[in-house]
Parts: sequence; C-alpha cells; structure tokens
Amino acid sequence: MRYGVIGTGAVGGFYGARLARSGQEVHFLLHRDYEYVCRHGLSVDSCDGSFRLEHPYVYADSAQMPPCDVVLVALKSTNNHMLPRLLPPLLRPGTLVVLIQNGIGVEEDVQQMFPGVALAAGLAFICSAKTEPGRVNHQCYGSINIGNYSCRESDIVERLVDELREAGIEANSVEYSTARWRKAVWNMPFNGMTVALGCQTDELLQHPSTRNLVREQMMEIVHATRAMHIEGVDEDFVEKMIVTTDAMTPYSPSMRLDWDFGRPMELEYIYTRPCRMARDAGCPMPRLEMLEAELRFMEGERGKDKGSSH
Amino acid sequence: MRYGVIGTGAVGGFYGARLARSGQEVHFLLHRDYEYVCRHGLSVDSCDGSFRLEHPYVYADSAQMPPCDVVLVALKSTNNHMLPRLLPPLLRPGTLVVLIQNGIGVEEDVQQMFPGVALAAGLAFICSAKTEPGRVNHQCYGSINIGNYSCRESDIVERLVDELREAGIEANSVEYSTARWRKAVWNMPFNGMTVALGCQTDELLQHPSTRNLVREQMMEIVHATRAMHIEGVDEDFVEKMIVTTDAMTPYSPSMRLDWDFGRPMELEYIYTRPCRMARDAGCPMPRLEMLEAELRFMEGERGKDKGSSH
Repeated sequence: MRYGVIGTGAVGGFYGARLARSGQEVHFLLHRDYEYVCRHGLSVDSCDGSFRLEHPYVYADSAQMPPCDVVLVALKSTNNHMLPRLLPPLLRPGTLVVLIQNGIGVEEDVQQMFPGVALAAGLAFICSAKTEPGRVNHQCYGSINIGNYSCRESDIVERLVDELREAGIEANSVEYSTARWRKAVWNMPFNGMTVALGCQTDELLQHPSTRNLVREQMMEIVHATRAMHIEGVDEDFVEKMIVTTDAMTPYSPSMRLDWDFGRPMELEYIYTRPCRMARDAGCPMPRLEMLEAELRFMEGERGKDKGSSH
Repeated sequence: MRYGVIGTGAVGGFYGARLARSGQEVHFLLHRDYEYVCRHGLSVDSCDGSFRLEHPYVYADSAQMPPCDVVLVALKSTNNHMLPRLLPPLLRPGTLVVLIQNGIGVEEDVQQMFPGVALAAGLAFICSAKTEPGRVNHQCYGSINIGNYSCRESDIVERLVDELREAGIEANSVEYSTARWRKAVWNMPFNGMTVALGCQTDELLQHPSTRNLVREQMMEIVHATRAMHIEGVDEDFVEKMIVTTDAMTPYSPSMRLDWDFGRPMELEYIYTRPCRMARDAGCPMPRLEMLEAELRFMEGERGKDKGSSH
C-alpha cells in the first residue's frame, strides 16, 4: 500500500522507515529536518538492527504529497489543530488514517474535523527518541496495536497489520476502546507523576508511598472502565503493568521529555478527556484529576515565567 | 498561674512572651539561642506592638525548670519523642499541658506517654516566624483556641483562656475534635500543596485547577468528619477558609518553611493520622492520601541526596 507519515519523529519515523525498508511506498512529511533528510537520508539506530533510508520520499509541505492508502499521524496531539491543513492532500476515498497518539478522545475530535474519513487508533509500545536531525534512536520494544474506530472496510486494517508484520513489527488488530484505556493504565500515572515529582519510572516504583499511589491511580481507571462497560481493563492488567515497569530500565515518559524540553504537555487527551468521561459515567478518578490539576498549575506557572522574560 | 513553655520558637515564644508581659510567671525552655536570650532578652516584633522581655526566666535544660500550672508545648510534632525527657520536671498533680501543635493525633500519642496528665489542644491562628536568635517576628493574626482533651478540672482551662485574654490575646475554649479538624481543613491542603508545587498560598488559589483541587481536598475532610460524627466542619466553613486565604498576603505555611530549610516535615500528624482515621471510618480522602504519598516521596528522595553527599 502507499503510506503517508504526518509527523516523522521518534514514532512516525520509526514505523514509516520500517515499512519503507520492507518495500512499501512511504511518503514522509518533515518539518525542521527536511533539508537534512533530503541530503543525508533517514537513519534508524535500533536495538533490532540499525539501517538508513538513503532517498526516502520526503516533503516539507503536505500539499505536495500524493493521496495515500494509509496515513500514519504521529504528531503530538497538542498539534492536532494543524490536521485540517496538513491531512486533506493525502486523503482519497477509502484512506485509513491511523492516529498513533497518546490519550483518550483523539479519534473523536479528529472525526469531527473529517466526518467521513476512516479512522483507527495506533497504540505504539515503543521506547524511541529523535535525538538529532534525520536520526531516530529506537531503544527497545516496538510493537503496535491497531484499534479500528470508524473504518467500515476491515480489509484495509487487516492489510495494514499484515504489512507491519512483513516489516518485522509485532502488530495486532485490537478492540478500540479496550486498547486505548489499557494504554491509559500505564500512561496516566507514569507520564504525569514523573513530571510532578521530577523523577523517572523506577523511582516512583521504588518508594512504597508512590508505588502504592501508582497502583491506586491505575485502579481508578479499572473502576472507571467498568462503569463505562469497557472490557479487558482489570486488576490483573494493573499488576502486569507494574511488574513490566519494574523490569524496564529507568524511563522518562514522553510527557516528562515534553516538560523538560519546554514543549506543551499532552494534558487534554492524557488527562482531561478520560477524567471527564469517567466522571460523566459516575465514577470519577480523584487521584488522576488531582494529578491533572498539579500539571496544569505547573504549566501555568511556567507560562508566567516565559511571559515575564520576553 | 505559673507557665512553662517547651519550645520557645515562633509560636511558643509569642504566647509565652505575651503572658509574661501581662504579669504572669513564665518559664521558657530554650535550645539554640539560650545564651543569646540570657544576655539580650527575648524580643517580639509584632503587628500588635513590639516589646522585649529584658530578663525572662530561661533554661537550657528542663530539669532546672519548676513545676508549672500550665505547660505550653510548642515543639514541632516531629520532636515529640523528646517529651518523655523534657516534660516531667514541669509536671505536678493538676498541671495542664497544652499542645500547640499542628495536626491530628498528637494528644492521643502524648497521652500514651503521660497517662494521667491533663491535656488540651492549642490551635494557634498566627503568622509568625523566628527570624534570628531571641527574636520572634509576629506578622499577623494571633488568636488561639483551647480544646480540652483530657482535663477533668475545667477551671484551669477557663483560667488559661482568661489569662490569655488579659494578655491581649483573642482566646476561646472550643470543642476539641471540631477544633482540630477545622484547623486541618486549612492545614492539609495548603501545607502540602505549597511544598509539592513549590509555591505559596496565593498562587494555589489563583490557578483555577488548583483552586478547585484545594476545595475538593477540603471537602474530603468535610465528608470524613461527617462519617466520624464530628460536627461543625461543613461546606460553609470550607468557603470561609478559601475566602480568608484569598484575603491573606501570600503565605508559606510551616511545612513549606520546614521543607525549604531542610527540616523534617510534620507528615505523621498532618497527613498520615487523619488520613488513616478517615479511612477507618469508611470515608477515605484520596486526594489528601495522594498528597501525602507525594510528600513522602520528596522527603525520601531528599534523604537519599543527603545520604550520598556525606
């Protein structure tokens, strides 16, 4: 199939490059490192084997991109307001748009921007970073789950999963809501708590007080999903997430990196929306709401600093 | 009456000095600034009028102190393990010991140390600091409520209130549990949140997210006290605390000062005990429990830093 990648960063760059290496036609939208990639190609330093695309199809402007069968959107969700400008050139009837983004509620909002378009969620389980122009550093993991949100032709979702597998990626088709909320079980505690307490995942789990708190926050999600009749998010999964994270090397989640580098945090989709949905279902998540309030405070205070220094 | 003051700091120094100025016999236990006060007296710089006690009764060792009618204990509650050594010389049958300390549960624990002794809580509403040796800086407020905990002779409690009033202090006798928990309504959100977010009271109330969070934390106490059948802690009181704090100049609560100066925080009585009591009563306070977990994490991390630097 012909693929487009909107947001060629640590995640979009990785999956797109792997698909291209395995022979798919992949068109990359680049921003800051467009010139660099034109000259030097796109490198992937990877625990699964490093490689370089010498001459990928790259663009600085999505208006120059062709219509695609599948578009992987791997922008930060804080940039989704750019989609009405970026996405239309890549769409033709039947295009599947896969939102490889964090949080809950992105499909709902993007669907409102593009009412007729087929959407799926891409849940990436990957530790990767874009450390310099044209260079993706893939440290570990790398699987991706695809959850169909509004695509009526399941063929294309299955074909996407097949072609990802052909590219050596562990890919699966999963139930949309369950997948998004299972990912939230990890994302909601670890993203925000590492920012609020200025630490990494390992420190949170080493202290008995915060280890217990992380579990309680995860259990808030278990109870909320139960109230929303979403299956597959249970206490066993919580324990699995904690044990899995125990086994990880100390990790700074994406929100911690966003905070450290002065970028906006993905508060809307990682906290506000799921907290509101849980509350609307009669099962609020007080600890996660509190975490959101703390993060909003921190972002507001930093905004003041920035304002006063200019 | 004859008074003893254990802990001549910002609070004990203030009330003791005011009682002494009004003619009461007050014996002060001093620690670091004993020598200084022997030579230069005890100064109170106060919004209500500054003064100095030229030759107060001061002691470096409580063994030298006489038995007293009333002992004001104004140590940090983190130093209460010192009471079995400090307090006995000041006790005679009938001595009233007033714990002018923050939190919930101090009387219970001190009563276990001194089973027969008459105890009362002293709830001080005061902004004061000990800025240098022998010098109390009283910025504003200054009232004190006395809540009888285990004193069978109410005479002495009333006489204490009278003599405080004669000293120009706004003093009242109040119901013990209600008073302690009403104070917790302010103390629990503001002490910890100013540490967790590195801010003062005004910033917490200016941000909509944390203003709402502070109110929700206060409401957790309202609900918990209801479950414990403690009266007088209601939503109106919560609103009053918020409006009162809005009107205050930006303030760093005692826990924030403790944190900033590298002193241990009063986590046990300000968080652990009230949270446990609420949970035992079937009405846990999740946001305040989370705040405690964050503070314990911060204290633990700082402990590690200290450990590694020595």
